[in-house]
Amino acid sequence: MNSMAEPESGFPVLDPRFLGCDASFREAAVVLFGAPYDGTASFRPGSRFGPAAMRQDSAGLEIYSPYLDRELPAGRVHDLGDLELAPGDRNMVLGRIRGTTARITADGKTPVMLGGEHLVTLPAVAACLERWPDLCVLHVDAHADLRQDYLGENLSHATVMRRIWDLVGDRRIFQMGIRSGTREEFDFARSGHTSLNPFDLESLPDVLALIGSRPIYLSLDLDVLDPAAFPGTGTPEPGGVDVKSLLRLIHRLPSRQLAGADLVELAPHYDISGCSTAVALKILRELLIGLLSPASGPVL
Amino acid sequence: MNSMAEPESGFPVLDPRFLGCDASFREAAVVLFGAPYDGTASFRPGSRFGPAAMRQDSAGLEIYSPYLDRELPAGRVHDLGDLELAPGDRNMVLGRIRGTTARITADGKTPVMLGGEHLVTLPAVAACLERWPDLCVLHVDAHADLRQDYLGENLSHATVMRRIWDLVGDRRIFQMGIRSGTREEFDFARSGHTSLNPFDLESLPDVLALIGSRPIYLSLDLDVLDPAAFPGTGTPEPGGVDVKSLLRLIHRLPSRQLAGADLVELAPHYDISGCSTAVALKILRELLIGLLSPASGPVL
Amino acid sequence: MNSMAEPESGFPVLDPRFLGCDASFREAAVVLFGAPYDGTASFRPGSRFGPAAMRQDSAGLEIYSPYLDRELPAGRVHDLGDLELAPGDRNMVLGRIRGTTARITADGKTPVMLGGEHLVTLPAVAACLERWPDLCVLHVDAHADLRQDYLGENLSHATVMRRIWDLVGDRRIFQMGIRSGTREEFDFARSGHTSLNPFDLESLPDVLALIGSRPIYLSLDLDVLDPAAFPGTGTPEPGGVDVKSLLRLIHRLPSRQLAGADLVELAPHYDISGCSTAVALKILRELLIGLLSPASGPVL
Amino acid sequence: MNSMAEPESGFPVLDPRFLGCDASFREAAVVLFGAPYDGTASFRPGSRFGPAAMRQDSAGLEIYSPYLDRELPAGRVHDLGDLELAPGDRNMVLGRIRGTTARITADGKTPVMLGGEHLVTLPAVAACLERWPDLCVLHVDAHADLRQDYLGENLSHATVMRRIWDLVGDRRIFQMGIRSGTREEFDFARSGHTSLNPFDLESLPDVLALIGSRPIYLSLDLDVLDPAAFPGTGTPEPGGVDVKSLLRLIHRLPSRQLAGADLVELAPHYDISGCSTAVALKILRELLIGLLSPASGPVL
Amino acid sequence: MNSMAEPESGFPVLDPRFLGCDASFREAAVVLFGAPYDGTASFRPGSRFGPAAMRQDSAGLEIYSPYLDRELPAGRVHDLGDLELAPGDRNMVLGRIRGTTARITADGKTPVMLGGEHLVTLPAVAACLERWPDLCVLHVDAHADLRQDYLGENLSHATVMRRIWDLVGDRRIFQMGIRSGTREEFDFARSGHTSLNPFDLESLPDVLALIGSRPIYLSLDLDVLDPAAFPGTGTPEPGGVDVKSLLRLIHRLPSRQLAGADLVELAPHYDISGCSTAVALKILRELLIGLLSPASGPVL
Amino acid sequence: MNSMAEPESGFPVLDPRFLGCDASFREAAVVLFGAPYDGTASFRPGSRFGPAAMRQDSAGLEIYSPYLDRELPAGRVHDLGDLELAPGDRNMVLGRIRGTTARITADGKTPVMLGGEHLVTLPAVAACLERWPDLCVLHVDAHADLRQDYLGENLSHATVMRRIWDLVGDRRIFQMGIRSGTREEFDFARSGHTSLNPFDLESLPDVLALIGSRPIYLSLDLDVLDPAAFPGTGTPEPGGVDVKSLLRLIHRLPSRQLAGADLVELAPHYDISGCSTAVALKILRELLIGLLSPASGPVL
Repeated sequence: MNSMAEPESGFPVLDPRFLGCDASFREAAVVLFGAPYDGTASFRPGSRFGPAAMRQDSAGLEIYSPYLDRELPAGRVHDLGDLELAPGDRNMVLGRIRGTTARITADGKTPVMLGGEHLVTLPAVAACLERWPDLCVLHVDAHADLRQDYLGENLSHATVMRRIWDLVGDRRIFQMGIRSGTREEFDFARSGHTSLNPFDLESLPDVLALIGSRPIYLSLDLDVLDPAAFPGTGTPEPGGVDVKSLLRLIHRLPSRQLAGADLVELAPHYDISGCSTAVALKILRELLIGLLSPASGPVL
Repeated sequence: MNSMAEPESGFPVLDPRFLGCDASFREAAVVLFGAPYDGTASFRPGSRFGPAAMRQDSAGLEIYSPYLDRELPAGRVHDLGDLELAPGDRNMVLGRIRGTTARITADGKTPVMLGGEHLVTLPAVAACLERWPDLCVLHVDAHADLRQDYLGENLSHATVMRRIWDLVGDRRIFQMGIRSGTREEFDFARSGHTSLNPFDLESLPDVLALIGSRPIYLSLDLDVLDPAAFPGTGTPEPGGVDVKSLLRLIHRLPSRQLAGADLVELAPHYDISGCSTAVALKILRELLIGLLSPASGPVL
Repeated sequence: MNSMAEPESGFPVLDPRFLGCDASFREAAVVLFGAPYDGTASFRPGSRFGPAAMRQDSAGLEIYSPYLDRELPAGRVHDLGDLELAPGDRNMVLGRIRGTTARITADGKTPVMLGGEHLVTLPAVAACLERWPDLCVLHVDAHADLRQDYLGENLSHATVMRRIWDLVGDRRIFQMGIRSGTREEFDFARSGHTSLNPFDLESLPDVLALIGSRPIYLSLDLDVLDPAAFPGTGTPEPGGVDVKSLLRLIHRLPSRQLAGADLVELAPHYDISGCSTAVALKILRELLIGLLSPASGPVL
Repeated sequence: MNSMAEPESGFPVLDPRFLGCDASFREAAVVLFGAPYDGTASFRPGSRFGPAAMRQDSAGLEIYSPYLDRELPAGRVHDLGDLELAPGDRNMVLGRIRGTTARITADGKTPVMLGGEHLVTLPAVAACLERWPDLCVLHVDAHADLRQDYLGENLSHATVMRRIWDLVGDRRIFQMGIRSGTREEFDFARSGHTSLNPFDLESLPDVLALIGSRPIYLSLDLDVLDPAAFPGTGTPEPGGVDVKSLLRLIHRLPSRQLAGADLVELAPHYDISGCSTAVALKILRELLIGLLSPASGPVL
Repeated sequence: MNSMAEPESGFPVLDPRFLGCDASFREAAVVLFGAPYDGTASFRPGSRFGPAAMRQDSAGLEIYSPYLDRELPAGRVHDLGDLELAPGDRNMVLGRIRGTTARITADGKTPVMLGGEHLVTLPAVAACLERWPDLCVLHVDAHADLRQDYLGENLSHATVMRRIWDLVGDRRIFQMGIRSGTREEFDFARSGHTSLNPFDLESLPDVLALIGSRPIYLSLDLDVLDPAAFPGTGTPEPGGVDVKSLLRLIHRLPSRQLAGADLVELAPHYDISGCSTAVALKILRELLIGLLSPASGPVL
Repeated sequence: MNSMAEPESGFPVLDPRFLGCDASFREAAVVLFGAPYDGTASFRPGSRFGPAAMRQDSAGLEIYSPYLDRELPAGRVHDLGDLELAPGDRNMVLGRIRGTTARITADGKTPVMLGGEHLVTLPAVAACLERWPDLCVLHVDAHADLRQDYLGENLSHATVMRRIWDLVGDRRIFQMGIRSGTREEFDFARSGHTSLNPFDLESLPDVLALIGSRPIYLSLDLDVLDPAAFPGTGTPEPGGVDVKSLLRLIHRLPSRQLAGADLVELAPHYDISGCSTAVALKILRELLIGLLSPASGPVL
């Protein structure tokens, strides 16, 4: 028995779950969980603290979106909590994320994972691929993450999209906002292995046209945002997009096609103001409301 | 006797007042004062330290505005200092602010108040209403602040505009930049109780046309700015306006109609860089120069 | 239903409760809860964030005490979570704390409360007094907290021990470590209304002799520690005790006499290093192990 | 002998130089050096720590620019290290910078200096003027820096462009992005002594047309950026340009005309997130790649 | 006219002066002033912000000392404010401090100066020497400050006691707590030029016996405290004394012999917790109460 | 070619090496190197930044020790720089440290390593064991580090002393200052596998008597210090020793027996004041001067 026990009825206590994520696992359409791992961070670690910061500050969020004129619906999202992940045991980490994601999708629910560093995306995508073999990956990020290896490692935040490409092959990864990488990574992408849309998020309509009706896994590395808007991250890359542009992308996603999603690379210690966490929370709320909108039909 | 005594002549000491606010109360056209209160802050307190941070860092400001090609004129603004407000005694707080504002307006001077949290606007508006019964409130903010009550309280930063509506009724409150609130607050605003202009500041011309020649109280919650530009605040709300847009609004205000103004919700501890304080100071300077411009005629 | 729902069996998730506090309410001998309120903070607020910081960082603690050569026993402490308290509604705050404490003591369990500011001690003591009319209060603090009123308020962190004196009268409050206050507070204490043992914790044996076998409520304001050891507090008072001295006091308490306890005034934002939270956690662990030791017999 | 000795061959140690600046002095076309001086900072000192922060964090940078589709070429930039400058001895400071710059230019190499405060630009420009008597100064900054004196001093960060004007006279200084100064400074500029292009960087084409084929010294005070993008500076001035605009300016410089350049006023302590340092590094990389591009011909 | 004008009677505003320093210059026995200068700081500047931090946080102090069982008496201390000092003009800085100190002592009052860096002690001692030719200097510090020159400068925080020795000669400087310096500085001290009492403050009785009845100038560099107790300083030196030891020294000073005093090297930006400022304030309060105690007779 | 090239003679640049570590590898008796790895940090990572912070701030240190009345001798210590270590590749990390240490000891020099997390001690000890088969390990730490495995890993900062015990067996590890661990770890130590001297450093004479004339490897986890003195570490453990006690231990080591040493677990980001780095530097200086003292004879 692993979670906070239900208190005796009548005590006026605060809810420890993400704001509004009050469904049981059984009744939920979407299952939220944290993957607090940053074991391959090459520059500055700390994204392991991202999920806890988001859960704690979610009390300051509203459940109503004035952009969508809708509230996060009650009884539709389950907050599973954060996975227990050993900082130095990459295989265990990858296994637990993959197993958890697989069990969520097996139940016909949509997984939404909060990183952690970007490597956590690999097992989540691998699990989703089992269920949706034609899955496309929409990769929104400042960094290409396409290295063959990084300082001799082939499983790293800097190689994660290359490893996913190993699984899905050409024309299945759609990258947006990319503005940093090696020449080799950009050459790899430009030679057709991925669809590379660098610097901004303006080409979303083209990307969605290419994806068509295939299921989509959204992997959102929050460092796609300009460091002015999102300083709380390990590898800030100046010259990024602003929050309004990212909200626009989230609002335009075809949510019925979303098979799974993640938000990664919030490292809250680098932003004492808490604003980076507030950004992550607002993006998450808009994503969840979109996923659960009656207008957008049943989730995939 | 409560203020720093005048030193013996000849000592080369720094002026402790806001930069350029060197008028006596008698000669002043504008009276500046701080309201260091944050007693109802629901998420993160600290705006009580805003006025002191602004006064201290004002030494780094210039009195010349290259935007307006004018200096803050000498002998026109009195710095009254900060009110002494008990953190837990809301009635005393509201009473002192109302009394101070009333005395300033009774003398034909324009009050400019530095918060503190947004609840401090209520007594200031109440005092101004006595003198200008047709006063309109220009409310620039990220949050609607229109709740009927908040966790059972009806006097709170989250209810302040609703309480002002209790005083002035429909079509007297003009809200700009709003991007957060409950569904009930947005429904209340949209049903015509206030003029709601969400997300940005672009509709100022329309707002001013609706206000016509009526006197205006400007209540500027600095969290209307994007947290990138203004992280030093208790409830950061991503997706806001930038400093240039806010400067443009300040520059376009019909300053002869301004009956009073406030800048609220600077919580300097959350921004170690001091940039949020610098933003508040620049906005204040532009506001003061505008208020005192010969081009804009005598202050209301 | 207010707490995190139990996850489907088999998900490898982290426990959101305080480390080792895994009992149900029913089976528990000790009940831990947070009182995140700082509404009367006169200097620097922020203790409302204390309980959340402690719960989050408790994962870095060990359950074994090498000082006592004992572990925190399984199945003996229930973590109730944090009370939901409105920042500006003091009456509601006092009522909820009193009601919660009363219900815990009514069940024969020992309440351990985590502040929040020091005013939260008043309702907890009031509830304990109903059950133990001869209760003595052991008040460990840097500040006397004996003002008749503070800026016109009589319910404040600065008046809390005076209000408790209103309830219990002379020779029932034992103060240790006090090193700050007004002349009036020290005169009040020295005239016999409380037992004042200023500056350090060395007179504990004398204090315990005076208390005899009466039940004890321990109110531990962590700012009794020197700011070097505990900078994360709103009103740091230099010249305090070190952690080893405070541990010694905790280890020497007659735990069978402890009717209730609190640890207050951790304001984690003022200590980026996290060390203040680590201190609070270690003191809490030692207190809990002491309370639950078989050697010390059944809890009061 | 002043630098880190070469280790015995075979030890796998990190390179302490700026990323990619691996040329010997002899083979280099560009020579980078730090000028860690902030002795005249009037508001908040700390830019003396700028060069060390940049060198340390350069390990997180890529040598490839996706904007230019080029890498920083190997063997072309020498990292000289940081000059040893006495904080209180302005004459020694100015002398060492001038001597170092002169020696670099005498060898036909391009100096790139990292401040430090803006006064360090004066001796660097003076040295370049000896070699290129028709040198123009492209001054990108938030502040006009045109005071005749500042609190009685005539050698200060606030007077540096006035002192350079003393050397070069009218129509040789081109100022961009300026948004702060005294009335006297703006009047001085507007009366034709400099070419003043306030508030943004849009008029670069006009500026370059006026400069024609004359050699250019670029003095880039990074506080031209909005504090949202660059909080780590001593005198933040809200309302500035964003990183993309500044990158655009760097990319459009006629690099063959660049006789020298500096980046000044990074004060890393004011930005705990490290993002300001990341911005400075990215601007520097783009500048260096531009300087060394085969497309842009031999460096001046 | 340089100070905050007295407000119209009746406004309930906070006093901007140091807590309890409410005397006019004329009636004062002690005159407090700030010297916000850090122009020769060799490692980390920032002590220029010390006086402002102390004045602002003094509101959190009590005027009663439980150590001395006395309050700071009303009407005895004048707060002159902070001197206006140009960061880069050392001669002006030294001149203004010397002139201000001389005028205070000429009036028969005791100067108490708040630094700023340690060089500010030189002109204050020089001024006091004119009035008390047999003045002794009690130098409490972590650093010997006895260099002949520092990086070629002979007027620096690192040379200040050597320059004072130039004025007073052998056996007039008594150094306590020193634990850092060059071999040359220690050799200079040990050869009899000063009375060196390294590492702790225990030899005060011996020092006072040597001083006898001569007047004393106390120069207290707060970095004599261990960095654990006082992290907010530019050159922290581990292994220092604790606050209780320093309080004991202050309490044992023969206050009737004190001709002047200073507290220097608080650099508040390096201590976000504010604890270093709290330490400085408590030391200052005890010093002032001691100076003004009736028991200790008329001030020198 | 991996290190900063020697500049052309005559440029007045700062030395990038540790203060006073100016020997070539060949001439050195002691070789210093950094091991910037924190890949198994279970609570808060960041010790990878320790060596860089120490090197940068070493400029603020003196080479003279007033405790020992000796200077760090010139030409005796070589600063090798920091090893290049991949964050996620533990085997490479362990291999590079072991190889580097082995090469240093093979040359008859004493290795001094700066962590990094505590796991880096394992390969250094392993290399030293090859040369000194009877090596004893003096382990000064807050934590026992004796777990058999940690979350399934057997190579971790929490298991490092257990792994070393696997190599050396009983009665070869001497632990001092330990105040945290599991019951199993303390039971393991108490059953004679190590010599456990918990809580303080007072039993050094007994420990040295037990070691006799055998060679010693000193592994100093700086978190043995109380967090008041050393907040900049990942796992602060309250109740530790002060700096003076640790200096005393360093001064009493029989330096001729020291085969190697390390200082680990400085995580500078958690201590904005820089004081933790200053502590580490002072301890290192005293250790190096001790190692190189003529009084203590030739190094092992």
